[in-house]
Amino acid sequence: MVNTEQITFYTHIYSPYSQRVHIALEQAKADYTPYTLNVLDKPDWYAAKVNPAGKIPAITYGGPKVSPDTPSDESVKLAESAVILEFLADLFPDAGLLPADPVARARARFFLTVVDTKGFEGFREFIFLGHAMAPLIDGYAALQALLPPAGGFALGGDALTIADMAFAPFLARTYLLLSVDLGKFPAGEGKKAYAILTSPRFARLQQYLQDVKANPYWKATWDEDTQLAMWFTNPVFRRK
Amino acid sequence: MVNTEQITFYTHIYSPYSQRVHIALEQAKADYTPYTLNVLDKPDWYAAKVNPAGKIPAITYGGPKVSPDTPSDESVKLAESAVILEFLADLFPDAGLLPADPVARARARFFLTVVDTKGFEGFREFIFLGHAMAPLIDGYAALQALLPPAGGFALGGDALTIADMAFAPFLARTYLLLSVDLGKFPAGEGKKAYAILTSPRFARLQQYLQDVKANPYWKATWDEDTQLAMWFTNPVFRRK
Repeated sequence: MVNTEQITFYTHIYSPYSQRVHIALEQAKADYTPYTLNVLDKPDWYAAKVNPAGKIPAITYGGPKVSPDTPSDESVKLAESAVILEFLADLFPDAGLLPADPVARARARFFLTVVDTKGFEGFREFIFLGHAMAPLIDGYAALQALLPPAGGFALGGDALTIADMAFAPFLARTYLLLSVDLGKFPAGEGKKAYAILTSPRFARLQQYLQDVKANPYWKATWDEDTQLAMWFTNPVFRRK
Repeated sequence: MVNTEQITFYTHIYSPYSQRVHIALEQAKADYTPYTLNVLDKPDWYAAKVNPAGKIPAITYGGPKVSPDTPSDESVKLAESAVILEFLADLFPDAGLLPADPVARARARFFLTVVDTKGFEGFREFIFLGHAMAPLIDGYAALQALLPPAGGFALGGDALTIADMAFAPFLARTYLLLSVDLGKFPAGEGKKAYAILTSPRFARLQQYLQDVKANPYWKATWDEDTQLAMWFTNPVFRRK
């Protein structure tokens, strides 16, 4: 427990954006209260009192300790996963979320930007909209090319930074969903994408994911069986 | 002159993203070499040696002092305006690009995120694609609502932060282009949007833009006559 002000974390395990913040909170050894939001039937107080956009993740910071479903007017409310990651990096400067060197910090932020543009577009287009597979493959090729060839996480070290926290939640969901052909694409297309992403061309990316999955802060935020069960029953992907 | 390493800044006055970085360099009183890139006929060395994505802005940092058109392999290359803004905030911590308080820093970054999503979408859709006007108006209404009601810049002070540096280049181009009905929209639509954005509903936004235009670092990066001449001859908007 290293923070003095309370932190309440609004999340759901489906959300890769929320998992980013979850990993950061774990690595920072923050004292925080997680609250799983019912995302299929959001309570009115959430948009009214926490995040007007209605999205997760969000955190409240400071103010009195209250029940997460009765947020205090006195706490600061923060939304947008990248904004929260930076906030936690500022709040917990010794947690390694960002390195101290300005150039290395810029590399982490550039990596995150590529995840949120090329990486996310490919993920969304193929898996959630059922459009072409190429942007997914191209996006992961671009991100693999940014990883240090010799190994290690996005900045080359053996600890996660916000670059990895931003990327890995999308990457893990991609491999998991494609391995069981789950998504909006035509049946069979997911397995084809999975074959490409598990081929030697993507060896570095596979090694990276394996390293992420061995990280203790990742492990604290991800349970493969629970994820799989959740995605199979997710109404978004319910097959006709 | 406060930096010891060289900075070369690749830019063009048409680009709101480049102007963000330009304002930051000015406010930081950085020692930098600007280079206007021929964006209509980009030289091959730019993608090869500076920014593989071919976009501006970009900066080189460190390495030997060389001519901007023969970049050194020894310099660090940075792209993406938001990444460069953060880099400059890290490099020049006394320049006020970001405040010191983590919550205030998060507010600046949240504002920037809204500019780059809602704000940019409306700008691009209406002015550059000629689509509906509503997203432009809605985006600026959302951004106006984030401004402190009592006055001042985005974080409430009388100095620019990266939130303002991100926003004002889009805002100034919007008012300028609409005032002369220049854009991809049908003739007359720009003037209609201008009438809305100059109405009492947007009084706070107009005050904000007026305050920005009085700022010395803004002034060092913006010449209204040059902008107007440039946009009138820009092939993107050439009317049939």
